[in-house]
Parts: sequence; C-alpha cells; structure tokens
Amino acid sequence: MAILERNDTGAIAHLKMNTPERLNALSDEMLEALQSELDTLRDDRTIRAVILSGAGKAFCAGHDLKQMTVGRQAEDGGKAYFTDLFDRCARMMMSIQSLPQPVIAQVHGIATAAGCQLVATCDLAVAAEGTRFGVNGVNIGLFCSTPMVALSRNIPRKLAFEMLTTGDFIPAERAAELGLVNRVVPETLLEHETLSLAEQLASKLGAAVKIGKQAFYQQLQMPLDQAYAYTGGVMAENMLHRDTEEGISAFIEKRSPNWTQ
Amino acid sequence: MAILERNDTGAIAHLKMNTPERLNALSDEMLEALQSELDTLRDDRTIRAVILSGAGKAFCAGHDLKQMTVGRQAEDGGKAYFTDLFDRCARMMMSIQSLPQPVIAQVHGIATAAGCQLVATCDLAVAAEGTRFGVNGVNIGLFCSTPMVALSRNIPRKLAFEMLTTGDFIPAERAAELGLVNRVVPETLLEHETLSLAEQLASKLGAAVKIGKQAFYQQLQMPLDQAYAYTGGVMAENMLHRDTEEGISAFIEKRSPNWTQ
Amino acid sequence: MAILERNDTGAIAHLKMNTPERLNALSDEMLEALQSELDTLRDDRTIRAVILSGAGKAFCAGHDLKQMTVGRQAEDGGKAYFTDLFDRCARMMMSIQSLPQPVIAQVHGIATAAGCQLVATCDLAVAAEGTRFGVNGVNIGLFCSTPMVALSRNIPRKLAFEMLTTGDFIPAERAAELGLVNRVVPETLLEHETLSLAEQLASKLGAAVKIGKQAFYQQLQMPLDQAYAYTGGVMAENMLHRDTEEGISAFIEKRSPNWTQ
Repeated sequence: MAILERNDTGAIAHLKMNTPERLNALSDEMLEALQSELDTLRDDRTIRAVILSGAGKAFCAGHDLKQMTVGRQAEDGGKAYFTDLFDRCARMMMSIQSLPQPVIAQVHGIATAAGCQLVATCDLAVAAEGTRFGVNGVNIGLFCSTPMVALSRNIPRKLAFEMLTTGDFIPAERAAELGLVNRVVPETLLEHETLSLAEQLASKLGAAVKIGKQAFYQQLQMPLDQAYAYTGGVMAENMLHRDTEEGISAFIEKRSPNWTQ
Repeated sequence: MAILERNDTGAIAHLKMNTPERLNALSDEMLEALQSELDTLRDDRTIRAVILSGAGKAFCAGHDLKQMTVGRQAEDGGKAYFTDLFDRCARMMMSIQSLPQPVIAQVHGIATAAGCQLVATCDLAVAAEGTRFGVNGVNIGLFCSTPMVALSRNIPRKLAFEMLTTGDFIPAERAAELGLVNRVVPETLLEHETLSLAEQLASKLGAAVKIGKQAFYQQLQMPLDQAYAYTGGVMAENMLHRDTEEGISAFIEKRSPNWTQ
Repeated sequence: MAILERNDTGAIAHLKMNTPERLNALSDEMLEALQSELDTLRDDRTIRAVILSGAGKAFCAGHDLKQMTVGRQAEDGGKAYFTDLFDRCARMMMSIQSLPQPVIAQVHGIATAAGCQLVATCDLAVAAEGTRFGVNGVNIGLFCSTPMVALSRNIPRKLAFEMLTTGDFIPAERAAELGLVNRVVPETLLEHETLSLAEQLASKLGAAVKIGKQAFYQQLQMPLDQAYAYTGGVMAENMLHRDTEEGISAFIEKRSPNWTQ
C-alpha cells in the first residue's frame, strides 16, 4: 500500500495521503512522495487538474512529531535535520503553487498545523461539513511559523493571528467565510463535489489555465504597474494561441470551440 | 451620440459608456474616450467625484472580441496590436486609480472580464440587485490575466482564483461580501444611491480627499515603516491647509466649517 | 491619577488610557505614556499578554485637536510639530506590533481616527456591542492618512476607502465581519471576555508566542520564497527550545507539559 495513492479519472489526478493511522502526517516519506508526484505531474500534459485528499478520519494533522523527536538524537540536537525538514516542506508547498495544473484540497475531519498550511496552499479547497481547521502548534510550544506563511495570505490578518496564538480550531463554515476554503458540502457529497469542480477546471483550455495560474501568483507579489506590464504581455501571448483564436471565433459564432488540446 | 456620455450634476461628473448594442465593450474607441475624459477630469478642480456607468442592459462586458479578431489580420498575427491594446487598457485603469477625484462604479446587469476589472479598479462600487460579476475569459481560452490584477487586490485569493478558473459568475450580494462592491441596492434606486454617495464625497474638502486618495494607493504598496514615514509627511502637509485649519476650528467650536474650496 | 493606568493581573498587563474628559485622545502626553509603558513591557519577561483599553465612554477618539491647534502658533505654522507628532505616533503604533507580547484592544464606545488605528494596530481586538468605528478626519478636512496605514492592512481595500472618504462609522458587528476586530461581546462581558482571551494567550509557552508574533509581521512583508526561508529558520530554532521539546514529548505521551517558562 503506497503512502500516497494516485488514481486518475480522465484528466484528473487524485492524490490521496494514505497513512490514516498517523492522520496522514507530513513525515519525511510523505513529503518525498508528494514532491515526487508533483514533479511527475508538472510535465504531464494529459492531467489538467489535481485533487489532494487524505485517507481515514483526517485530511492531515501536520508534521510527524514522533519522527521529529527521533531527529533530536543527532549531535546538533536535530538542528540540521529540522532546517532541512522545513526546507523540504516549503519546497513541496511551493511546488503545489508552481504546478501548471490547479490543485484542489478535498478536506475532511481535521486539517491542522502543516495540514492547514496544505489547505491554504492549494489553489482551491472544498471542505466537508464538520471539518475543523487549526494552526495549533502553539499549544505544544511550537508556533506554526511556516503554516502561517500560507494562512496569512488566505485570511485577514487579525483572524490569522488569533488562530495562531490561541491554537483554537475554526469550523468549515467559518473557514469559508474567511476565504480559507471555497466551498463547504455535506461529507457524503465531498468526493462528488470536488470531482465536479475538478472536471469543470479540466474542461477549460489547458494552456489558458496554465498561463493564468502561473501569472496569478506572480502578479500578486508585484506593484500595480509591474503587475500590469507583466500580465499584459501574458495576455497578448495568450491571444496568439491557435486554440484561443478558435475559442473566440466559436464564441462570436455562438458555437462550441473545437480545441486541439 | 457619443460612445461615452458625460453629464455633470454640480461637482459630480457622470460618465456613461454608451454602446449598449456591444454591451459597452472596451473597444479601442471606448478606451480612448475613457482615457480622454479621465485626462480632462484630472485637472478639473470643479469636479469632486466621478460616477462611471453603462447604458443598456449591462455595465460592461470586457474587451471587444470582434475588434480583437480583426486585429489578428496583421502580419504578426496581431501581437503588436494586442500588446498595445492591453497596455492602453492598463493605462486607463491606472488613470482611474491615479485620478485625484474618487471614482464610483455604478454597476448593473453584468460586469465581466475587463468589465469586472473596471469595477475592481474604481475606488468604490454600488451594484444593483441582480448584477452578475465574472472573469470568464477562461471559457473561451483567454485567461483574464489583466483583470485578475485588479480583482485579486479586491477579494481573498482563493475566491479570485475560483472565479478566474471556473469562469463562474457571482451575484451582487456575494460581490459585496467579498469586498468587490461596497453596496447592493434595488435596481430602481441604483442611480439615486450612487449619486447620494458621490454627493457625500463631494461635500468633503476636495484637497483632503485628493491627498488621501493618492496616499491610499501609494502606502498600500509600501512596507509598514515606509508607509508611516510617507503618510506622516502627507498628514503634516494636510494640517497646513488653511481649510483644514478652519475645519478643525469649526469642529472645536461646534459649528460648520466655512471652506474656501 | 495617571493618564495611563497600568494594572497587572498575573502575567497580564492592562493599560487603560485615562483621560475620559478628552475621550482618551492621543495627546503628546498620552503618546509618551504609551511609548514609555511599551518600552518597559518589552523587556518584562513576567508579562505574557497586554490589554489596552480606555476609561469613560470611549476607547479613543484619535489625536488631540485642541493641542494640535495650539501647535499652529509656532513660526512655521506647526509644520515641525506636526511632523514630529505623527512620527512619534507611528513609532508608538509600530512599538505595539514589535512588542514581544500580544496586545489586545478592549474596545467600547467609539474608536475614531488614530483611535481606530490603534485598534487596527493591536494584534487582536475584542469590541463591546454598540461600539462604533470610524476614520472620520475627512469630515474636518484632515484625511486619516496615518490611520489608513493600519486600517488598510486589516480590511478589504474598497471598504477601507469607503470609511476614509465618507467618514461614516461602522458598528462592531460590521467591524468583525471585515476583520477589524476578532470578537464582539455584550458590554457587560467586555472586560471578562478580553481577560479570558489574554489568559488563554498567557497560558501558552511565552517563547513560542514571542517568536511567532515577531515572525508573523516580518513574513507578511516578504515574497513567498523569502517568507518560507525565514520562517523555516525560525521554526527550526523554535524546535531547539527545551520547553518545546517538553511540549512535544508531553503531547506524544498524552500528558500536560512541565514548562520552565
């Protein structure tokens, strides 16, 4: 049984973290498996959207504390290991954002600490009713410093600060209000609704989505004039795609486009 | 009939895009007309607030796809034309933000693609019930890369990403929840309510609003300490205005100010 | 009677602005008193959370307009004084953010102009039902340019722009929706609820909260990759704290941690 299962449905890759007995913790092995799949998906033109979920009763409970505790036995008390661990974790998170295909978190149970970061990092998130979100490392003396990078870029800062310093959980409905998840659905419909959303994304012109996703995160970090200079160039390039020409012609002629991709 | 009508009510300029048969698309001509009016308004001290609306059944449906398609016939497949088009469009959008007077979008029907960008770009927006907002270029293979610059600076990122990649519309009430519009009113009251808001802004000291609007967007792009150094200087200058001195004196003496402006 | 009262409850310092007859205006004296207490608290390891409130019927009504008017009598019309005043005010605000301990605004009555900035600047805010928030300097010709620095980093930009240019107040419930305050409670419970929140924060490992608060605001201003490089290092350091090791061990062993701090 792989710790990260991959099942494809047409153009949609579904990655399921599969160490339910450890609440799908981001162990060294899980991080490596995620990184490896992301690296593979990056160049896979047949895949147009990715779903990320967790097996068992939780989406993901964050880092693997037992494994981290073992890491302390090194001569340096674990410093090199921890530094490397957070570096690998951040690289995996950034790989989600830089993946050409959109990634949807399919969340249920709990998403805590780096598990909550994973939700915040995915481009979109669908949560089951009853899901609880927290960045609760503070409760054990380990402030969720890397998770807050993603969280604080999703929700208003005072609310992020509250979650980080109280360690309190928020329910799915509140997560939706704040912008941490896009939709909340009954748990029985979670898979279906997430797949529907993925299929909707997959039905778009792949080249356009790829262009757009990359530009989305790039421009967010630029001053306004640079953001416009950059995206103006992106959009002019987009116009030159043959399939975009066909898409626009089809729209003007009120018919469906015949795309090559 | 001008493609961009201007009607002034006292200190308020009302610009109405007037190509309803094309859903007020941002054609070359419309962009030029908007740019021209904005350039004129910039130095018009008698105008204290601007309203931007659309004639017919929609506010604005974005770029003029038919005109863009004609642009493809150039030797370079339209590349130079498209690059220039998005550049002119961005310049017009930035001119709204750099205009000394506040600009209020009066929105009804639909606001899509660059039309949604226009709403996001205006300083304030009032929408009629029933208005729908979308950045739906992805549906025809043209990702709304320039519209997302403005949209992603108005609403939480996961919700912006969803709109951009699904092409789905959101209703006015949702746009208000997310921060894309300030107020939603019955369509019969749209003009009245927008005008009331414009008149409220126009009743303030023009110099103070001008100072404030410019500083608002400048400081948003600065780190905290620079933002304070900059706005502290702005506010000290503001204090030295004769009309501000009068405003503060009037407040202390519990009377109405007699402003020269 | 001190203009700024300090009362400690265990590890919680409660600062109460105490010039109710001036609605706790941020006069030269009040700014100095606040700065002085913040500078003292900074190095006080026994204090783990700070509450900031106002005596009388308002939290804080902003700058002291009468004192500022007196400042005009200098040869330069007050320019040097105003520049220095806004500089001292910004320094005090930034000292709240750079304070190692979290600061909670306990807000009632009104919080206007620099008083609203104070709420926006605190890490967290609890407001009594009936509290009104405004950045209404525009009404007297003095745009709230420095308050907007903090406000526009708390709430969506169109809503911030509306408050700044209309001068309108928003009620506590709206402030909570927008992210300007964390919680709204009945006025009779305001002190109790704020103290409970402070005690919750104070119960966490102080070193972790200190590390986290500092990193929170630092990383917000960084591009994503720098933010991760920085917080990864912060988190690796956090792991090396003896009390964090104990916190994690206690969690794994399902017992309460025995922290030295």
